[in-house]
Amino acid sequence: MHLRRATPDDAAALADMLLPVIREGETYALDRDLTAEAALAYWTGPDKRTFIAEHEGALLGSYYLRANQAGGGRHVANCGYVTAASARGRGVARAMALHSFEAARAAGFRAMQFNFVVSTNAPAVHLWQALGFAIVGTLPAAFDHPRLGLVDAFVMHRSL
Amino acid sequence: MHLRRATPDDAAALADMLLPVIREGETYALDRDLTAEAALAYWTGPDKRTFIAEHEGALLGSYYLRANQAGGGRHVANCGYVTAASARGRGVARAMALHSFEAARAAGFRAMQFNFVVSTNAPAVHLWQALGFAIVGTLPAAFDHPRLGLVDAFVMHRSL
Repeated sequence: MHLRRATPDDAAALADMLLPVIREGETYALDRDLTAEAALAYWTGPDKRTFIAEHEGALLGSYYLRANQAGGGRHVANCGYVTAASARGRGVARAMALHSFEAARAAGFRAMQFNFVVSTNAPAVHLWQALGFAIVGTLPAAFDHPRLGLVDAFVMHRSL
Repeated sequence: MHLRRATPDDAAALADMLLPVIREGETYALDRDLTAEAALAYWTGPDKRTFIAEHEGALLGSYYLRANQAGGGRHVANCGYVTAASARGRGVARAMALHSFEAARAAGFRAMQFNFVVSTNAPAVHLWQALGFAIVGTLPAAFDHPRLGLVDAFVMHRSL
């Protein structure tokens, strides 16, 4: 598996990876009917550095890295991760996370915060905890899950 | 005190109110050198409804109301408030908060969340607690305070 910065040439493959996750609506607080253009604008916006995980030319996943806040909060990073449906269970998210910690450290960030981890997304919660994140906040009934209704979301934090 | 929607005519007075708070850098995680144009773009952006508190034509304060997240998180509101330096201690923030709860309820929001209340901003923390907000998260060393160095920030939440 190889990790590199995203380029405009990745747009179509990236949209193919993002849209099913957005349409499903179970893990990201994004409008489920977001267009491909809007999804790409969100994932690769000017405030973000976007990376691609690939193997033999096939995209396995992607993540973005950005400052979570400006001003006095700009030393804390924020990331979002997505794994291609066909590549799940192969450690792609873990590899992207470890890469993102290094990229964030190299950019001078001192901590990483996830603002909205849906509490029912057990694989994500467990992975982040295994990688040193603590739940520092519980947002009650913050997410309207398409199958489960209102569920909590977690704020998770890790020093770098 | 009268509360109404902001208009483009409020821009200059609004910038005069926002910029000292942004320059001070003790309460908002915004770049301290933000231009007036950028500050106004932030405060009155298309994702926000912006209100003005005034008395006899003078601006006493302003707040914005927006959805804190999209998709499955869009039932939770988020607000930001600013009081003119000359109008502090007169209940302006409290009046704006109560107005914002009604405006948020009227817009269909079911809860309100503040994502980043600097822990050393005691007047704000106390006011939000008095108005029914609970601290649902503590973000360790999340804010680099210009005088105090790294301090915590709180995530605060209230049902509507």
